[in-house]
Amino acid sequence: MCVFCDIIDHKIPSKVVYEDDKVLAILDLSQATYGHTLVMPKKHYANVLECDPDTFADVCKVAQKLAKQIVEKTGAKGCNLLINTGEVAGQSVQHLHVHILPRYTEDDVTIQFHPAEGEKDLDAVLKTIKG
Amino acid sequence: MCVFCDIIDHKIPSKVVYEDDKVLAILDLSQATYGHTLVMPKKHYANVLECDPDTFADVCKVAQKLAKQIVEKTGAKGCNLLINTGEVAGQSVQHLHVHILPRYTEDDVTIQFHPAEGEKDLDAVLKTIKG
Repeated sequence: MCVFCDIIDHKIPSKVVYEDDKVLAILDLSQATYGHTLVMPKKHYANVLECDPDTFADVCKVAQKLAKQIVEKTGAKGCNLLINTGEVAGQSVQHLHVHILPRYTEDDVTIQFHPAEGEKDLDAVLKTIKG
Repeated sequence: MCVFCDIIDHKIPSKVVYEDDKVLAILDLSQATYGHTLVMPKKHYANVLECDPDTFADVCKVAQKLAKQIVEKTGAKGCNLLINTGEVAGQSVQHLHVHILPRYTEDDVTIQFHPAEGEKDLDAVLKTIKG
């Protein structure tokens, strides 16, 4: 049971921004900002870590194209492209999707992260990642 | 003058996570979370809206591969992939880059957006975007 699969299968109605054989883009019902759109592969992948690379590239190309179109048409000042993976990262539906969030001077989006405190041993981080 | 171009040209040192002909990934010096990495095209594009689509797909494929590797190696509980476009969206360096932010149960990342208040005329939004 996946709500996005049901949307893709037209079992649940949605507002379709773009559709091709592999990719669907719909308006996010919440419209966190005006034009907030979700881009997803039609095939079910729980998240970006599990997605076939070529499919992910297709999704990204559509997301880029739509971001450009949405920013132009809405008059947004910029945008965020965001993919959340895992509950800890804010992923609410376990079907890979890219948020396109058009951004405006006065909006209600908060994205904040800060430099880690204390000494940073970057070589140790690199060793962990590459090791 | 672009700090990321200088990093790509080895004029400024960096901690390289991954490199090929088209794409460079480096540790973010801030390490907002452990393993925080930036993935960028070697060719200068100010942002995702201006990037050549094939180059963007290359960047996304590397970002996906590294996200998987970083989550596995760090033991993170998930991750965010984030592309900021424009100052309003938090873009600080005007050279396209994807943030890979590994996420942990107790970290200092805030990503919040909320359903827009009031009646939402989704058909009007769709008309704006597609029109």
